[in-house]
Amino acid sequence: MPQPPVRPLRALELARRIEAGDLTPAEVVDLCAEAIAAREETIGAFAALDLAGTRARAAASAATLEAAPLRGLPVGIKDIFDTADLPTEYGTPIYAGHRPVADAALVAMARRAGGLILGKTVTTPFAFLDPAGTANPHHPEHTPGGSSSGSAAAVAAGLVPIAIGTQTGGSVIRPASYCGVAGYKPSFRMLPMVGCKTFSWSLDTAGVFAAGVADVAFAAAALTGRDLRVDRAAAAAPRVGVVRTHVWPQASAAMQALVERTAKVAASAGATVREIALPPVFEDAFRAHALVQDYEAFRALAHEHDHHRDQLGPLLRHLLDAAATIRPEAYDDARRVAKRARQTLADLMDDLDVLLTPSAPGAAPRGLGSTGLSTFNRLWTLMGTPCINVPGAKDESGLPLGIQIVGRFGRDRAALEAALFVEQLVSTESGG
Amino acid sequence: MPQPPVRPLRALELARRIEAGDLTPAEVVDLCAEAIAAREETIGAFAALDLAGTRARAAASAATLEAAPLRGLPVGIKDIFDTADLPTEYGTPIYAGHRPVADAALVAMARRAGGLILGKTVTTPFAFLDPAGTANPHHPEHTPGGSSSGSAAAVAAGLVPIAIGTQTGGSVIRPASYCGVAGYKPSFRMLPMVGCKTFSWSLDTAGVFAAGVADVAFAAAALTGRDLRVDRAAAAAPRVGVVRTHVWPQASAAMQALVERTAKVAASAGATVREIALPPVFEDAFRAHALVQDYEAFRALAHEHDHHRDQLGPLLRHLLDAAATIRPEAYDDARRVAKRARQTLADLMDDLDVLLTPSAPGAAPRGLGSTGLSTFNRLWTLMGTPCINVPGAKDESGLPLGIQIVGRFGRDRAALEAALFVEQLVSTESGG
Repeated sequence: MPQPPVRPLRALELARRIEAGDLTPAEVVDLCAEAIAAREETIGAFAALDLAGTRARAAASAATLEAAPLRGLPVGIKDIFDTADLPTEYGTPIYAGHRPVADAALVAMARRAGGLILGKTVTTPFAFLDPAGTANPHHPEHTPGGSSSGSAAAVAAGLVPIAIGTQTGGSVIRPASYCGVAGYKPSFRMLPMVGCKTFSWSLDTAGVFAAGVADVAFAAAALTGRDLRVDRAAAAAPRVGVVRTHVWPQASAAMQALVERTAKVAASAGATVREIALPPVFEDAFRAHALVQDYEAFRALAHEHDHHRDQLGPLLRHLLDAAATIRPEAYDDARRVAKRARQTLADLMDDLDVLLTPSAPGAAPRGLGSTGLSTFNRLWTLMGTPCINVPGAKDESGLPLGIQIVGRFGRDRAALEAALFVEQLVSTESGG
Repeated sequence: MPQPPVRPLRALELARRIEAGDLTPAEVVDLCAEAIAAREETIGAFAALDLAGTRARAAASAATLEAAPLRGLPVGIKDIFDTADLPTEYGTPIYAGHRPVADAALVAMARRAGGLILGKTVTTPFAFLDPAGTANPHHPEHTPGGSSSGSAAAVAAGLVPIAIGTQTGGSVIRPASYCGVAGYKPSFRMLPMVGCKTFSWSLDTAGVFAAGVADVAFAAAALTGRDLRVDRAAAAAPRVGVVRTHVWPQASAAMQALVERTAKVAASAGATVREIALPPVFEDAFRAHALVQDYEAFRALAHEHDHHRDQLGPLLRHLLDAAATIRPEAYDDARRVAKRARQTLADLMDDLDVLLTPSAPGAAPRGLGSTGLSTFNRLWTLMGTPCINVPGAKDESGLPLGIQIVGRFGRDRAALEAALFVEQLVSTESGG
């Protein structure tokens, strides 16, 4: 049976209230603690949690935190990133109880920006497809998506206002779509991956989850010091390309209708909207993604495959066993295809701000035995372009459906603005 | 006073003798042990050593090892790479006694290829410029160069036939030049960096040290399964561009004369040789290197800077303090310059196989208080192109002088062939 509606904590609103002196970082921790007490047992979003320590730090350094870019807001960190003060298990029993010697770069940056690390969010083992047991806050019998399962679910359920995840296939955009929150995968390597357990060094990309588009933009701006906030002026009408890609038939009817309706509404609201047909190199690039990923994973996880093969999840074990046979020449070819596709994409988007495309095949599938498919994400991960899941729509059963906005490499600000423009239309549409 | 001549162990020759049944992996470990007993106290190349364990593994798995690509040869690993069975201290007291939970990818690949990890070689702290105390085997009052000090010195002194290092500025090519061994920095990310302590994720590049060009090519081929060996046919005469770059006046007279003489001899031996003038974008790229490196180091080493600042070396502390002020926009500009320079370089080398340029300003400077300068290496690290130090020449005092061969990105085999061609000329020239 569906749960009562879940309500995320809105990072930007909390930050503004702290800035105005209406709220303290410690009180925000209390809000998180209340939601965690009410919902965490059902959802299982956290792999490790430090409520008492976080509250103590919030109280002890209130003035410093309130003046910092993140205003002392709590942050959830996917348990694929190293933390020196919390266990880091990469979702696997192989590393049960592991405590790294240093924080990952992004964790240290979150602390520098005045973020409080509330806990580690559940990751699937090594951020691959074997599921981890976290439930979707909108319906506990449905997957929240993966591999950033805990980050998406924690934000959706209001357990934490900001969470960090990663995407190698579709592990930011897909769970954000399934959980009905904003997910932002920045341009490749805008957020550093140092201290994050590697799966594929050419693909692993850190990203941010928060309630809405302005919230992820706020968080990313605070983390990086970049001019990414989109809450200070009305979003201009973007130039949008609607992209179906060759996997379009794998999108549900509801998802197809949502993309088409959104394109129409965006045009009515002043956006320039046109259809884009992708040339064949993108089908090659879609296939190249798997080759690049698997070849690199066989090396990145060599120690685990060679010493702990029996403790790997069955899907990962199968992938690594099979990846042993990929020749360097095939990998080099795949990288060349990716490079060609990136150049072609830059040319195709010369007069566009963003592409509009599904975030996932549809709503979160029933059952916790699979985290769903990254069919609509893999290509964009390989392209290294910024992607945002725009939340707000629902399917016929009330489960969230996300729209994906794909920007141009390095033009993250424009992508976030376009996503905000679309988000405002979607929320009007759905009467939200 | 100069030491008696040092003699590296030749990896390829050892591998052939093992293959032919004339030598066992355990006997090679004994050769290393003898050299270590005689020289390690003076040189200080190892941060950790496991002679007994290595010998036991060599004896226990002889047949398996002998059939593997690396034939059971001992390998030294720069102590910036994680090893699960040996301490990993990244050259810093901050991590004294640290034992990682997993092997770095390249360490696991060395084991998969039938290499025996003999020990960890000394790195400067975090592979930066603060010196580490290792002596140059050719003269203990001179630096071996850095940051891969121990790897270069260990190979030069015959303590181990193969060693792994890394280069962010000039940390493979420079110490190889100073120590008179071959150093090979492959195309960017040909060797995975997973489990290597990051300094700059856009620049850190793993490389290989061995006695000569054919030996580094053999080792890299065995590690990667790539077609990189150059010992099976005569090296064809390459098309060579002689590049002085704007830092040419900083090369010693001996180095300038060596490069010019080598160019002349190569032409006489049938190579096509012409002068290349680099356009101004390469001076911009030279400057961009520092911006990219420092911006990334401030984030990659955020935990250490925020928690262990007093234990950092003075040069690194100064760099990180200053790097705090670099704006993301300046970093983005530097990356754009680098991209433009890479494209320009690809065009410039359209009808060339390699460039010929100094490996270092001159021979190893006197004193262990500095590891020398990466002036002649930084640009090529940023370009991501394969670089090889060709050993064999000496300056007037008998210290090694290296010549650098720079190849085209992804054309590592051609670069190694050209380096072998040049090496044969240099050794003929010097009567070696």
